[in-house]
Amino acid sequence: MARKLVVSIKNITEEQRNMIREAAAEAGWTAEFFEKEKDALEAARDAEVVFADSARYAFDAPKLKWICSPSAGVDHFTGSRRFRESGVMLSNSSGAYGVTIAEHIVMVTLIMLRRLPEYQEKVADKKWYRGFAIRSIKNSRVTVIGTGDIGRETAKRFRAFSPTRITGVNTSGMDDSGSFDEVIGADKLEAILPKTDILIMAIPGTAETRHLMDADRLRLLPEGALIVNVGRGSTIEEDALIAELKAGRLRAALDVFTKEPLDIDSEVWDCPNLLITPHVAGDMLLPYTVERIVGLFLEDFKRYVRGEMPERAVDINKGY
Amino acid sequence: MARKLVVSIKNITEEQRNMIREAAAEAGWTAEFFEKEKDALEAARDAEVVFADSARYAFDAPKLKWICSPSAGVDHFTGSRRFRESGVMLSNSSGAYGVTIAEHIVMVTLIMLRRLPEYQEKVADKKWYRGFAIRSIKNSRVTVIGTGDIGRETAKRFRAFSPTRITGVNTSGMDDSGSFDEVIGADKLEAILPKTDILIMAIPGTAETRHLMDADRLRLLPEGALIVNVGRGSTIEEDALIAELKAGRLRAALDVFTKEPLDIDSEVWDCPNLLITPHVAGDMLLPYTVERIVGLFLEDFKRYVRGEMPERAVDINKGY
Repeated sequence: MARKLVVSIKNITEEQRNMIREAAAEAGWTAEFFEKEKDALEAARDAEVVFADSARYAFDAPKLKWICSPSAGVDHFTGSRRFRESGVMLSNSSGAYGVTIAEHIVMVTLIMLRRLPEYQEKVADKKWYRGFAIRSIKNSRVTVIGTGDIGRETAKRFRAFSPTRITGVNTSGMDDSGSFDEVIGADKLEAILPKTDILIMAIPGTAETRHLMDADRLRLLPEGALIVNVGRGSTIEEDALIAELKAGRLRAALDVFTKEPLDIDSEVWDCPNLLITPHVAGDMLLPYTVERIVGLFLEDFKRYVRGEMPERAVDINKGY
Repeated sequence: MARKLVVSIKNITEEQRNMIREAAAEAGWTAEFFEKEKDALEAARDAEVVFADSARYAFDAPKLKWICSPSAGVDHFTGSRRFRESGVMLSNSSGAYGVTIAEHIVMVTLIMLRRLPEYQEKVADKKWYRGFAIRSIKNSRVTVIGTGDIGRETAKRFRAFSPTRITGVNTSGMDDSGSFDEVIGADKLEAILPKTDILIMAIPGTAETRHLMDADRLRLLPEGALIVNVGRGSTIEEDALIAELKAGRLRAALDVFTKEPLDIDSEVWDCPNLLITPHVAGDMLLPYTVERIVGLFLEDFKRYVRGEMPERAVDINKGY
């Protein structure tokens, strides 16, 4: 019996399915495609590899060796004890989202600096009002927490707007991408926060990153600073941020929240100085993103059938 | 009696006033500053130079030789017969607005490609909805009509988003800024329109540019194309564009309109697939812009007192 690959990926095109089918056939595998997760879970019971976005595939599939997730953040896998104990290898699609998330970050940054929500309110009332003072990325001090694909693509785009500087922050304090003016270790975060006009957060949700921006660190940001979070809601102490936004001391554009979806009665919905997007900075509704996800999977699938480790294999304990 | 300079500029800082005062004093001139136009007009009656934004300064000031406008577009001067007949030299502040207008253009482009208005509507209703298909600047074909300061700063920023190509369009078909992948003459506009996903219009309002994008040319744009206009409303046949937007064939982000302010009963307010901003892409509410306007004026003032032509002198007949 041929080795089996099960694929259940949103918005995948017929052409992309064919590319996967061909790669599987070349390796002597069969590839099966499903729209519905229920059907895919059923088919995965005797699969060796699954390309889909749920830890549940590992729960009842004795032959399963590897799940490739189309997501970049994989806390929905690593947070599951049952998944961790399954021994199934996990890889992610880190590298597929930089382009779309960087575009989101530039967009929401400009919206908040240029007071667009306030202008939109006037326009909705058919009022021609031109009095809101605005700010510019030019001559702003930008700090990017997370120097992976998303942080780098963001830095590349911000660069064209001539900020004063772009500082990257990561665990090691090292980065050879050349995307940042300087890269510092997370242990030096508190020194850079008072000199930050725009703080971009593009890090995974792990035990280590939980409440990285807590009340004390939020207080270190200067008056009027903007926080953009596209990583995971858990990395910010949400109540403390809401208090700062209500006080008008900070502004924020959040794509991720402590609890998603936001509850209908969450106070977040009505918070001032906040632009809410419903976790869409890096969704799969941009065809280019799906193209990248499938392309990265094909690279890793070819490695796997050659007996090599997928390049984007996740360290379950680190969480990325 | 000392030669006299009258200044009436919005949002000018005390430091900037002092810089102008010093430059005037060095040349043996006096500089007077006014908040209210009425007072400035009164003082301008025996001034030689005015740094302010109205053609009216030329109407009752026999000694007046030069008005420097803080605007880039000066149709409010060149459109006045009385101003044209006054023989007063006019210069503009072309070069001061590229940074802020380019930021506006990138912002509204991303907003429209990423369906943010639709997401904002859902969020306003406290709905967590994630289903709108989006597009990217990456791999889009960008055409920029107008290769001046604004067009170049825009191209510089778009470049960082990896579009397929950026084509500049101007009168001569020539440009040595290196900002564009190619520059074509306005006579070739009709050939590029069917190959344009994002059309940026950054040109002045003159007799020649009136209805440059008329109904026929709008029809040449492919389905789903986005038009961004930051120049003058007169450059687009507004009724024809509204019809395309209502039909859902095109999308637009307009900062300028045929009639400003928009009438309270204008059908533009309620037009679908349209992002309206109230002529704020290049306003003077960004401190950097005022800094540039004053800096450019000081350059030209120093030229003027040396007996040279201001670099940004406007050809009254061309209108820019």
